[in-house]
Amino acid sequence: MMIDSAACAGFLKANDNYIIVTHAHADGDTLGSGFALMAALQQAGKKAKVVNEAELEPKFSYMLSPNDEVSDENAVVVAVDIASPELMGRLRPIYGDRVSLCIDHHPSNLLFAEKTFLNAERASNCENVYEVIKKMGVSVTPYIASCLFTGISTDTGCFRYSNTGAETHAAAAELLAKGADGAKINKLMFESKKREYYELERLCLENMKFLFGGKVALITITNEMYKATGTDDTFAEAITSIPRQIEGVLIGVTVKQRDDRSFKASFRTEEPYDAGAICALFGGGGHKRAAGCTIKGTAEEVVNTVVSTLEKVIK
Amino acid sequence: MMIDSAACAGFLKANDNYIIVTHAHADGDTLGSGFALMAALQQAGKKAKVVNEAELEPKFSYMLSPNDEVSDENAVVVAVDIASPELMGRLRPIYGDRVSLCIDHHPSNLLFAEKTFLNAERASNCENVYEVIKKMGVSVTPYIASCLFTGISTDTGCFRYSNTGAETHAAAAELLAKGADGAKINKLMFESKKREYYELERLCLENMKFLFGGKVALITITNEMYKATGTDDTFAEAITSIPRQIEGVLIGVTVKQRDDRSFKASFRTEEPYDAGAICALFGGGGHKRAAGCTIKGTAEEVVNTVVSTLEKVIK
Repeated sequence: MMIDSAACAGFLKANDNYIIVTHAHADGDTLGSGFALMAALQQAGKKAKVVNEAELEPKFSYMLSPNDEVSDENAVVVAVDIASPELMGRLRPIYGDRVSLCIDHHPSNLLFAEKTFLNAERASNCENVYEVIKKMGVSVTPYIASCLFTGISTDTGCFRYSNTGAETHAAAAELLAKGADGAKINKLMFESKKREYYELERLCLENMKFLFGGKVALITITNEMYKATGTDDTFAEAITSIPRQIEGVLIGVTVKQRDDRSFKASFRTEEPYDAGAICALFGGGGHKRAAGCTIKGTAEEVVNTVVSTLEKVIK
Repeated sequence: MMIDSAACAGFLKANDNYIIVTHAHADGDTLGSGFALMAALQQAGKKAKVVNEAELEPKFSYMLSPNDEVSDENAVVVAVDIASPELMGRLRPIYGDRVSLCIDHHPSNLLFAEKTFLNAERASNCENVYEVIKKMGVSVTPYIASCLFTGISTDTGCFRYSNTGAETHAAAAELLAKGADGAKINKLMFESKKREYYELERLCLENMKFLFGGKVALITITNEMYKATGTDDTFAEAITSIPRQIEGVLIGVTVKQRDDRSFKASFRTEEPYDAGAICALFGGGGHKRAAGCTIKGTAEEVVNTVVSTLEKVIK
């Protein structure tokens, strides 16, 4: 059942014990949603805890806040920023079938929860949680404001992506006025690259290839490169946005070695190319502008496979 | 004489012919200020033209708008985002001594104009111009909104730098609501890099030095590097943000060759270091977190000068 933010706030005030579940590979938006909601519930006299599938990346540790003791049996389960039970990862068998309330912003939400508050127009789910918290009538503390600001900032690439609208900036303005530490958060999320990252980036720029008259740019990252720079695949995420940022490039590809005989290929595209459709040719999938797949072979074989497939796509 | 925005608007409505001067090495903030003000004056029935020291970088061409015919003799000269006449470059001998009004946000403004509206609390000068335009009572068209949004976005590194506050986001929200094309502007400013840019970045990463236990990172860009990569100093702007982005770095320095015997040094700092104060030691100036200066010498001499000065600053 779809509900609005007022009904959502009413439901949250009507119960006493909450378990808030975030999605696997937790990002700033699911964590900001979860911790802000926990703090709001605690302020309203409820017991609440956030359950994450895995340990948080250290950069998110400023959001950690004491969980209440809430036992699984008598708790109401709330999912935040989760479009389908599958995205709960290893928490799915525990909570997947008993989500009472889901607050989300994904148009692909499967409406798997008993009640769902969904506004898919918004760039971040934290904006939806912010609306609910306001309706709950609790005070937006600097901590809550920082949690919510985190989700807005990370889901918009720091207000850079085209999903950023007037409402996004208006919410950010309010949260900063309420004490969100935007400078610290943005620094942590976007400006704290390790020295090793730039070592890896340098090697990637050395091997970047331009193909099909510059329509395609392709970067290869091998395990040897990780080893030489003291990095691993968590450093590769930021690299994948480089090829498409180059003027004239419509398809940016980054192939990242998994093991001796397989690579993860990440595609980032501009109109008219559909990254999800390209990756489907390799048995992968994703969104229109960003998608991924796994390709078997050595570095050379994988690049050749990508190039010959793109040749057909571009024709 | 310092004046407020209402007096500034009053002055602009009291005269008829305006020449608006932007600073040399024109950036998004001086151009956004200039073109927005020109459009506002034209709407108020005045004749106005923007005079730039050099041709605009192509990425700014969406701001170009027809100048009125205004002769130098009978025009009132307005400087935007210009802290001292020196920053007018080759326009200084023409307009440097006859600036009637300066609208600026640099704390280092020398108050060289007859009247100055200065709010140095703001991240961008476009926010100051926005305040003036509102006081003029003209309508903020989508074109004016896009010009002003450009300055806000570029002077805050797309809302990422610590100068970004609640008021910055509130202004951005208003301007997007008034029709600023934020998605297009941010794509042009931050996501359309040329191939040559990455060639230059790669060479810069190769020569990046870490000093004082990693507190300082320093990049050197020589004319030889521009030549080898087919770039020029307009490509260097994006490089200057790299050193400070590295974990642990509190002072990021980029020294960029001007000619055989001089370099422009750009400083980007974190607390407790004041970039403006550091640059003042070299006769330059700017903001607390971002400032610049010119240092004479060969590449090696300039780097040595920077290092020995920073040694004192850090002690």
